[in-house]
Amino acid sequence: MLIVKKFGGTSVADKERIFNVARRIAEDYKKGNEIVVVLSAMGKQTDVLLEMARNINPKASKREIDMLLTTGEQTSVALMAMALNALDIPAVSLNAFQVAMHTTSAYGNSRLKRIDTERISVELENKRVVVVTGFQGVNKMDDYTTLGRGGSDTTAVALAAALHADTCEIYTDVEGVYTADPRLVSDARKLKEITYDEMLEMASLGAGVLHNRSVEMAKKYGVQLVVRSSLNNSEGTLVKEEVKMEKMLVSGVASDRNTARISVIGLEDQPGVAFKLFNHLARHDVNVDIILQSVGRDGTKDISFTVNEDDLEEAVATLERHRQGSLKCQKIDVEKEVAKVSVVGAGMMSHAGVAAKMFEALYDVGVNIKMISTSEIRVTVLIDDIHVEKAMNAVHEKFFASQL
Amino acid sequence: MLIVKKFGGTSVADKERIFNVARRIAEDYKKGNEIVVVLSAMGKQTDVLLEMARNINPKASKREIDMLLTTGEQTSVALMAMALNALDIPAVSLNAFQVAMHTTSAYGNSRLKRIDTERISVELENKRVVVVTGFQGVNKMDDYTTLGRGGSDTTAVALAAALHADTCEIYTDVEGVYTADPRLVSDARKLKEITYDEMLEMASLGAGVLHNRSVEMAKKYGVQLVVRSSLNNSEGTLVKEEVKMEKMLVSGVASDRNTARISVIGLEDQPGVAFKLFNHLARHDVNVDIILQSVGRDGTKDISFTVNEDDLEEAVATLERHRQGSLKCQKIDVEKEVAKVSVVGAGMMSHAGVAAKMFEALYDVGVNIKMISTSEIRVTVLIDDIHVEKAMNAVHEKFFASQL
Repeated sequence: MLIVKKFGGTSVADKERIFNVARRIAEDYKKGNEIVVVLSAMGKQTDVLLEMARNINPKASKREIDMLLTTGEQTSVALMAMALNALDIPAVSLNAFQVAMHTTSAYGNSRLKRIDTERISVELENKRVVVVTGFQGVNKMDDYTTLGRGGSDTTAVALAAALHADTCEIYTDVEGVYTADPRLVSDARKLKEITYDEMLEMASLGAGVLHNRSVEMAKKYGVQLVVRSSLNNSEGTLVKEEVKMEKMLVSGVASDRNTARISVIGLEDQPGVAFKLFNHLARHDVNVDIILQSVGRDGTKDISFTVNEDDLEEAVATLERHRQGSLKCQKIDVEKEVAKVSVVGAGMMSHAGVAAKMFEALYDVGVNIKMISTSEIRVTVLIDDIHVEKAMNAVHEKFFASQL
Repeated sequence: MLIVKKFGGTSVADKERIFNVARRIAEDYKKGNEIVVVLSAMGKQTDVLLEMARNINPKASKREIDMLLTTGEQTSVALMAMALNALDIPAVSLNAFQVAMHTTSAYGNSRLKRIDTERISVELENKRVVVVTGFQGVNKMDDYTTLGRGGSDTTAVALAAALHADTCEIYTDVEGVYTADPRLVSDARKLKEITYDEMLEMASLGAGVLHNRSVEMAKKYGVQLVVRSSLNNSEGTLVKEEVKMEKMLVSGVASDRNTARISVIGLEDQPGVAFKLFNHLARHDVNVDIILQSVGRDGTKDISFTVNEDDLEEAVATLERHRQGSLKCQKIDVEKEVAKVSVVGAGMMSHAGVAAKMFEALYDVGVNIKMISTSEIRVTVLIDDIHVEKAMNAVHEKFFASQL
């Protein structure tokens, strides 16, 4: 088997953890597997480097920041190769130049375009474990780039796709993907399997075990992902195209507190008003989530929508700028103390009543629903922030109680 | 003017020093010069990284150690480019892959083979200061290599040669090359100029401002070197092919305590004995310095020679191994508490009496001479270690008193 294994910064934070990881790799190597390891920078090293940069120049260019940050993963891979050698496992570390990992030009948030596999293949043929820097690439100017948040996951999936690996294992500090965040819902349990689409919906809803870009790439290239713990040997969760038919209706309950609602009150009731509004926001890279339009007073209309809390300031500023111009309205309301709660499951495509069941659970514990949004495999409601935990538990119990 | 400037680790050890260097570069840039900067790793970072490696694997491969060490210079160049940007000086950092710096295959102690100048030239044309990682290169396997001790000096000189730079400035923590080590000889004074050959003799005698490899390369490619202080603006010392005719007889007095004497007593007086002895040592990479042969008792002969103290153990072990075989002798004596003192000067080629003047100075202060060795531009004596300071001062005064 050709296995790509990705370990995050926490898993390689110090000597002890580096050797824990090295021993796991050694086990699989001794079984005759070919192994490619993808590593992030050690512990909080990326933050340390960013702080160094800020200290020298608060407006440091992204090009130079990437040049600085890429030293982080290079340090981890060199040390991991040394640790593997210390366990008598032949190993070689490679950075983005050596692989090479070709990306788009953009610094700080680049995208992988192509991965050369020749060097890695030669090293694998020579029976070496190949330890590759995650998160980083090289653009057409021969400059270092970085892939942005969750970048090392993307590196691992892209490598697995390019090398036609049998499986791509993403090691984290949890044992897999859960039916709900175990910190919020004590009954949450680990899923054996989940589809790419469900994982995407879960990730975008703050379940955050895997970054969306890596899941999208895995789906696109059919890379089988395994999310598992770096601390123990339990089986983890398989992420793939389709899961067994007898699976349950709903895979999980997810929540996202990092959300805010904006209501634009008293817009002129004319064609193109909604287009103008969201076009302004799109131009400022503000991603809009749930949208709700209702009839207002005196022949006007109201449009409410949710945005990521990080984008709130930018969104409001943009709207205020256009308020006297193309976007006449009476009032712009903002509500920050809201959260999204969602149920996700590929099974609901063929089963009615999931939304109703969810709303019943919320009604039972007296949680008011502010907005509703649905996709083929997801039902999302917006509720008051303070009710998240109560809502999560009620919804989770409604769907999973019988299976516990 | 195209200037290559090299700063060592101490000069970029922290934010304040990085900005000191950046301001100096900015000054020269604003005068209209094209500037290439070569940097070492910050402060003691290389030692820190070596310690990390040792902690993970005391027998870490040189290949992986180089992979780890090269992060050091990459960190300095990125931060320096940020600092220059903060001073509104356009700048770009480049590592050994980006330049590219092609070296021989050997890890840990590689030699530069070829430097591509295209990327640097383009950046210079775009009016950017180019900040390049010293000490590191890339071999034909596309692996990082490092150049060994004094490597960043060599990088700077090689870049100056490849780019046909007008001058190569090596910044250190002293103001230039002195007639003697100022810590030993209080009257020592800074030289305005010195020839490559004199510098080579000085360096090999422990004056250590520049590494021999960089001086050899400067001589080979006719690169004009300037050794100057990173702390102030004083003029420094020019190192070049020939210096003014009116220059003094002797350029400096150097000493080297890191030396030991081995005496092989009672060798058979046959042809080929000396060849065998030094051939054995050469095979074990032991460099031999001063050699003295004398007639021993009973038709035997004695051979004494000095070696670097670091090589002493290896040298003695080698001789002992062959003592019962091809190298019959009565005794092997070792003396560690010895030191070399030398006067160096291109002027002595055309002036007799330098050696005599030196011996007189030593006689005046009662220092016994154990061995003598001369080259065209150097006279070296071996004396007891404890007399080094006294001998240095006496010899220095003899040659320089009239000029002080």
